[in-house]
Amino acid sequence: MDVEMTDRLRQIRPLVVNYSNFVTPFLVANGLSAIGSSPIMSDEVAEAHDIAQVAHAIAINAGAAERGNWPLMETLSQSANERHIPLVLDPVAVGATTYRQELNRHLLADYSFSAIRGNVGEIAVLAGIDWETRGIDAGSGAMSAAKVARTCAQKYHTVVIASGETDYISDGTHTVAIHNQSGLLPMIVGSGDLLTSMVAAFQGALPDDPFTAAQLAVLELTIAGEIATQALDYRPLPGSFYIQLLDALALITPQQIRQQMKVEVLS
Amino acid sequence: MDVEMTDRLRQIRPLVVNYSNFVTPFLVANGLSAIGSSPIMSDEVAEAHDIAQVAHAIAINAGAAERGNWPLMETLSQSANERHIPLVLDPVAVGATTYRQELNRHLLADYSFSAIRGNVGEIAVLAGIDWETRGIDAGSGAMSAAKVARTCAQKYHTVVIASGETDYISDGTHTVAIHNQSGLLPMIVGSGDLLTSMVAAFQGALPDDPFTAAQLAVLELTIAGEIATQALDYRPLPGSFYIQLLDALALITPQQIRQQMKVEVLS
Amino acid sequence: MDVEMTDRLRQIRPLVVNYSNFVTPFLVANGLSAIGSSPIMSDEVAEAHDIAQVAHAIAINAGAAERGNWPLMETLSQSANERHIPLVLDPVAVGATTYRQELNRHLLADYSFSAIRGNVGEIAVLAGIDWETRGIDAGSGAMSAAKVARTCAQKYHTVVIASGETDYISDGTHTVAIHNQSGLLPMIVGSGDLLTSMVAAFQGALPDDPFTAAQLAVLELTIAGEIATQALDYRPLPGSFYIQLLDALALITPQQIRQQMKVEVLS
Repeated sequence: MDVEMTDRLRQIRPLVVNYSNFVTPFLVANGLSAIGSSPIMSDEVAEAHDIAQVAHAIAINAGAAERGNWPLMETLSQSANERHIPLVLDPVAVGATTYRQELNRHLLADYSFSAIRGNVGEIAVLAGIDWETRGIDAGSGAMSAAKVARTCAQKYHTVVIASGETDYISDGTHTVAIHNQSGLLPMIVGSGDLLTSMVAAFQGALPDDPFTAAQLAVLELTIAGEIATQALDYRPLPGSFYIQLLDALALITPQQIRQQMKVEVLS
Repeated sequence: MDVEMTDRLRQIRPLVVNYSNFVTPFLVANGLSAIGSSPIMSDEVAEAHDIAQVAHAIAINAGAAERGNWPLMETLSQSANERHIPLVLDPVAVGATTYRQELNRHLLADYSFSAIRGNVGEIAVLAGIDWETRGIDAGSGAMSAAKVARTCAQKYHTVVIASGETDYISDGTHTVAIHNQSGLLPMIVGSGDLLTSMVAAFQGALPDDPFTAAQLAVLELTIAGEIATQALDYRPLPGSFYIQLLDALALITPQQIRQQMKVEVLS
Repeated sequence: MDVEMTDRLRQIRPLVVNYSNFVTPFLVANGLSAIGSSPIMSDEVAEAHDIAQVAHAIAINAGAAERGNWPLMETLSQSANERHIPLVLDPVAVGATTYRQELNRHLLADYSFSAIRGNVGEIAVLAGIDWETRGIDAGSGAMSAAKVARTCAQKYHTVVIASGETDYISDGTHTVAIHNQSGLLPMIVGSGDLLTSMVAAFQGALPDDPFTAAQLAVLELTIAGEIATQALDYRPLPGSFYIQLLDALALITPQQIRQQMKVEVLS
């Protein structure tokens, strides 16, 4: 894998338009900035089309998405598809309410996404697989997470990133497992939201290979998480980890990624 | 007091639904996560009823509450009352505008709250006691803060937490003073919002004793504040304190709480 | 320049009402609190008039400003003008969309602003000067940034702060350059939003001299940025810088500002 892409992304400085929830946008914006991407966020539908015209990629976070913002999400998604730029969906807590299922299924039915990024429980809901889920937690189930990711990717003809202790990434044909998932990353509310927007950033910088781009995003975040965890001597300190993570995202090098990456090709 | 409850809460992992303001949700979500609670936030009324069904407790932060979100706050409050789960109100800056008084009094008239958490100035406004207040500051007044808390608790048949240099907690009959209030905690905009949601988390984990639950929430936050303050050698550093506080909330033990707690029973 | 004003501001504790975007309000609120100002944020138009009555100054951040909030921005601006208190505009990414240009021009046409604070690209758009701009980045152009600031100040009869590697401040007649701009400050998404609100705080504390107040705000933030950068040994660590910046804002003294300030009077 061409891990030098993490450096080239800083040159390209992809502009990522985020429809974000209101809880974690500061983390997402500063995380994107740390990796060398340029974030933009707006909840005004009147400018959504204009903003989409300058974007390298668009990320839709369907957590805390209000009914009144459906036209905004639709305009952004439509614009991304028209311009053939990457469009990434985060189905936050899709299993929690009927409303969220309706919203996510509507978006997936009407627009073409270049990636879906969620925890394995959320991905299972989209794939139509029975998998216990509750709130923002990942839940657990009997079917292998790798198969859940692949099934979802096949169903929606997209790249799927199913996050958990191990991250599984599938384009429906090829599936890889990334074992760099840091133990501390889930401690931060919003680390998943950031990963979703990082997938958009990498796909925006590498639009011809959305599967590789997704892997690079996961590697960069999880290895930055490992570096931050080591800096804390593995103590479970959510405040310090949040800061160390932003620092690590700004400093991480292709060399570190190459040395620490644990990618297992499953199919 | 059974301070071991702070550990049991991590096992129960109470799911707290927060109607939060847009300024501090990241702090509230990560603070709840640090103490072992599971936060969820949504501004969409269409899913409010569904979300309330899985909640252990609901917290309503009436700061920055838009008129358009009254149906959302009403649905959450109604659901909490129907399910007999804790419902906590934070009357942020209720004294500042007529609108906020109207909103808070409407909520208090129509729903039954298990706790009200505010600074003593805000609690005085709800109690109908003359007490100088301005913005988000606590103000000061002639009547004892303990009596303000008790009067408010009697008026609304609830547990009241009146925050200040000393925190007063009353159920209308019994009143305690907690003298662990750290000098640095008020430096962080949002520490009050977090306390409100922590009260909800503790009441959700200990639904049969809302008075004790409120005390445990105050003790956990203020003693974490003391630990964070000591880690900074008492220097007034708001950025570092924010981080140390999140760390301390994740690491704090029942033993530390037992050793440092300064609870004075007033009645 | 009377740098002791930074201490007197802590005594005055000016209450700044912010119409903020949803990405950075936590940073803005805690930054204002660190310098000794009292922040308030509300998106409810029904209380905007009431809140404006107790404000020392009002800041309007036109980034992520929804159409539905135009009445709110109008009420706040109208109230500020009626009460003759400072009113500061941040034209975030005004060059990015037609909608933002329309919003900013509407506000500037109908209300009198005591300051406009933006990066030089945004200021150029308002001044009607051709200057490359993209997203939230500052862009670059041929005309001197000092002249851009002066032209914009003359056009709108206000004080203009054009941020960049060097900050230019002009009231249309007098123009100064402040060379304290830290290299790390732009790393933080939201540092510009904070500066805008700090300009409001200083103008609120020093309403008779909005030009000096703007300079003091820039000096306090940029020198705090230098202190924070030095604390990090100049390493580009966005997470740590965010924390060190908040700490430095709380601790900074008039003596430090006097010793480190680099103000060049241009006209």
